[in-house]
Amino acid sequence: MTAHRIEDIAIALGARFEGDGAFAITHAAEPARAGADALALAMDPKFAAGLAEGQARAAMVWEGADWQAMNLTAVIFVPRPRYAMAGLTALLDAGPRIAPGIHPSAVVDATAILGAGAAIGPLAVVGAGAVIGPNARIAAHVSIAEGAQIGADCLLREGVRIGHSVTIGDRFIAQPGAVIGGDGFSFVTPEAGAVEAVRASLGERGDARQQAYARIHSLGGVRIGDDVEVGANSCIDQGTIHPTEIGSGTKIDNLVQVGHNVRTGRDCLLCGQVGIAGSTRLGDRVVLGGQAGVTDHLEIGDDVIAGAGTLLRTNQPRGRVMLGNPAMEMKASIEAYKGLRRLPRLHADVTELRKMLSKPDPKT
Amino acid sequence: MTAHRIEDIAIALGARFEGDGAFAITHAAEPARAGADALALAMDPKFAAGLAEGQARAAMVWEGADWQAMNLTAVIFVPRPRYAMAGLTALLDAGPRIAPGIHPSAVVDATAILGAGAAIGPLAVVGAGAVIGPNARIAAHVSIAEGAQIGADCLLREGVRIGHSVTIGDRFIAQPGAVIGGDGFSFVTPEAGAVEAVRASLGERGDARQQAYARIHSLGGVRIGDDVEVGANSCIDQGTIHPTEIGSGTKIDNLVQVGHNVRTGRDCLLCGQVGIAGSTRLGDRVVLGGQAGVTDHLEIGDDVIAGAGTLLRTNQPRGRVMLGNPAMEMKASIEAYKGLRRLPRLHADVTELRKMLSKPDPKT
Amino acid sequence: MTAHRIEDIAIALGARFEGDGAFAITHAAEPARAGADALALAMDPKFAAGLAEGQARAAMVWEGADWQAMNLTAVIFVPRPRYAMAGLTALLDAGPRIAPGIHPSAVVDATAILGAGAAIGPLAVVGAGAVIGPNARIAAHVSIAEGAQIGADCLLREGVRIGHSVTIGDRFIAQPGAVIGGDGFSFVTPEAGAVEAVRASLGERGDARQQAYARIHSLGGVRIGDDVEVGANSCIDQGTIHPTEIGSGTKIDNLVQVGHNVRTGRDCLLCGQVGIAGSTRLGDRVVLGGQAGVTDHLEIGDDVIAGAGTLLRTNQPRGRVMLGNPAMEMKASIEAYKGLRRLPRLHADVTELRKMLSKPDPKT
Repeated sequence: MTAHRIEDIAIALGARFEGDGAFAITHAAEPARAGADALALAMDPKFAAGLAEGQARAAMVWEGADWQAMNLTAVIFVPRPRYAMAGLTALLDAGPRIAPGIHPSAVVDATAILGAGAAIGPLAVVGAGAVIGPNARIAAHVSIAEGAQIGADCLLREGVRIGHSVTIGDRFIAQPGAVIGGDGFSFVTPEAGAVEAVRASLGERGDARQQAYARIHSLGGVRIGDDVEVGANSCIDQGTIHPTEIGSGTKIDNLVQVGHNVRTGRDCLLCGQVGIAGSTRLGDRVVLGGQAGVTDHLEIGDDVIAGAGTLLRTNQPRGRVMLGNPAMEMKASIEAYKGLRRLPRLHADVTELRKMLSKPDPKT
Repeated sequence: MTAHRIEDIAIALGARFEGDGAFAITHAAEPARAGADALALAMDPKFAAGLAEGQARAAMVWEGADWQAMNLTAVIFVPRPRYAMAGLTALLDAGPRIAPGIHPSAVVDATAILGAGAAIGPLAVVGAGAVIGPNARIAAHVSIAEGAQIGADCLLREGVRIGHSVTIGDRFIAQPGAVIGGDGFSFVTPEAGAVEAVRASLGERGDARQQAYARIHSLGGVRIGDDVEVGANSCIDQGTIHPTEIGSGTKIDNLVQVGHNVRTGRDCLLCGQVGIAGSTRLGDRVVLGGQAGVTDHLEIGDDVIAGAGTLLRTNQPRGRVMLGNPAMEMKASIEAYKGLRRLPRLHADVTELRKMLSKPDPKT
Repeated sequence: MTAHRIEDIAIALGARFEGDGAFAITHAAEPARAGADALALAMDPKFAAGLAEGQARAAMVWEGADWQAMNLTAVIFVPRPRYAMAGLTALLDAGPRIAPGIHPSAVVDATAILGAGAAIGPLAVVGAGAVIGPNARIAAHVSIAEGAQIGADCLLREGVRIGHSVTIGDRFIAQPGAVIGGDGFSFVTPEAGAVEAVRASLGERGDARQQAYARIHSLGGVRIGDDVEVGANSCIDQGTIHPTEIGSGTKIDNLVQVGHNVRTGRDCLLCGQVGIAGSTRLGDRVVLGGQAGVTDHLEIGDDVIAGAGTLLRTNQPRGRVMLGNPAMEMKASIEAYKGLRRLPRLHADVTELRKMLSKPDPKT
């Protein structure tokens, strides 16, 4: 592990240090478990005891910490500890090791264009006419189909699949097994079928006979902005005619489904196992908690936040904070479910009131 | 992109054209964004303005459109626009490009049998004794295990996994990362455990001690009919003794879980992130919306439809339209959840009624 | 298929046989479909008719079955049929066929250490310094990154991804496409953002401007105990500083998400599509049904059981049996949802009571 001087870390974080700036650490650790070569993460006074327990000589500490009394050699003070973690971990992350150049086992088409500084891992495949920007890091078993375009500084981890007709901006990160550019799930029957009847009537299936499904092929590809990350085994489908679009700065966790023709705005957060059905649009800065879902053809405004497990079945104006399946505004949802817990009691109360009014419950 | 004559497209769609049938387009586009070489998709009068805005000279239009007044050269009239999209997109889809023959980097066992016209992509693996029908298109990094059988005209996209003991019909399509034939999730303790107690009692765990799990291995394989499609990163597990079965014509979206011993009927639609637990059977034409779930050992009748996010925990007679977690019939579910939103008010009302009857609420 | 003598099977299962112990079967089958070379699985009297229908000469039967009257040659009596299935299927499972030794197309780094008896499939990749115990079975297209450590007797099926900084115990099984060691989903804004405001206030987003996300890198790796199984396309993310941990004996189904810094105890069962958000801890023997979710930073006690589709948003003391979204104790949940179904009626009742008390409903 590379050693990092306290002074250099402080400069990288835009933070202030005290003590021996030349003291070097190789990794970060919780205070109680830290060895002498670790930077202890003690950004709150509650970690003081841990520092005493561990062996660390350097620490990232809370403002005002009396580090000399704690037998430390050097400390870094950070105003917003969680934010400092971003800079620190970036500095310490050796990342997956992919040797520079093209591994001899990789299959790179002669017409593919790789930017300077590419590192292409073993058994990766790059198709005809694909264009990949400078400093690409592409791990083992990745496939990039013909014609795909990826910007500068991408990191594609093991087994990522980039389909044909996919265009991606700079600094893209994809975790193992992510699939960008699968075909959309779009089928149609020769005559209107039961699902269309149910949608139109909110529940009546009519007497529509079911028929074999014909496939609507996906021709639209996927377009992804800059600074996007996609989690492990997540899927973003191609659009039908126009591309499915992911706005710049949007971060997508593992096992997320983004259907065909979806468009997300900038800086959205889609947590683990979120699903967004076809043709729905999300504004900027939308946050969907784990396992949340959004049905198809909806408009979700800027800054909407939905808690874990929320199902959005209707359009949402900007700024709404939603919870539940089906979704309500968060405060209303919490109140409603409190009421649900007390519902058996309420039924009993009403039965009693009926009796008091000598009005027998017809159910009993 | 290949050029297609308007007359040829009309014939392929079984549709009527007017104007210059020899006029050729290379792709489809929304009317307002269409260039001179595009077929504008303007199947509704609301697109008239868009046609004027764009550059298209050919369009697919609504019945009765006055195309000559709109400065078009040729038009196609379609009676059911959504259905016409199936034919049109099939015609225009160049699909993933996989060179005919076996890529030199692919590892195909000498005892595997490939039908005529196979295209096997780079770094694909085909195991001993596997049998694959004619015109197979198998993309990069696909693995087909020993003994698997696949019918004619399959398309397996990048990284698809076909296990041993899997049998698949004709015209099978699998999106990237789909897994057919993983082992079922089936474990058992030496003595009956807490989960069995909870199931028997609907909630009482008893004092069952937990014990180490023994694995029930999967020997049954998977059997898939004709015209089935499976989405990206979806999983269909092997059966224990008999195969897990997917009926012909069934379409499965991305990130769907089909447990061991499940049987689906024909022409089912399983939308994104649906989960079907072990040993459950679906009839024909069952439709499960996104993130819907079905618990294990259930019977779901023909033509059942469940909306997005629905959890089916009980058997369903044929034709039911269900919604919610837990599921109710759709109309009842919508009414019940309307009531839930008003529940805090109802609690207040009942408290007030109590007071009017001089019966103080014991909670206050 | 290998033939197995009835006597040998009985010994392996610790069970009693009667009849011709030398009679051999090649596979197991349902009684009605069993051929003459099958062991019929007839552990309940309800299968007696099926035995008559099929051709089996050997069967696993219920205690007290009059096998001679059923024209059988040999039978095995088992006290707990489901548990016997574990032993029987293990005996009959030929498993995926991976040739001993290293397939010539595999890319194994010269510094990787493989235990005796390894079978490494075609196009697998093993990185620098990886250490894999004896008798490893590693299927096609698996990647094991630099520095990963795996114990004895592992089975990694097709396309499994093991990241760098992953340590795994003995007898590990991973189904196709499982990803161990993707990076955690952890982002932070320079100043506190809307999500932090919503969490603090339970619903008020404040006027926090959204800002670009900075990435907190994952440095902690993953640590997995002995006897763990992970399902197809499931994901276990790296921890930030300390490893994400999976306790020995824990079994994980398909498409499950385990976030960064999560720790599970021993012998947990996580069914299909379960999601566990970052930093949550599960005790021992926790069982989460299909599509259940647990939000972040929670403590779930030993022996907690959550039914399918349950969302746990709060800490749970040991032994709780929970159901629903949001979760309640199972019996309370069942009662509450019964009440929900009758809620429209309750609203009507209360309106009527109001009228009887000459107190008009202000809503009407």
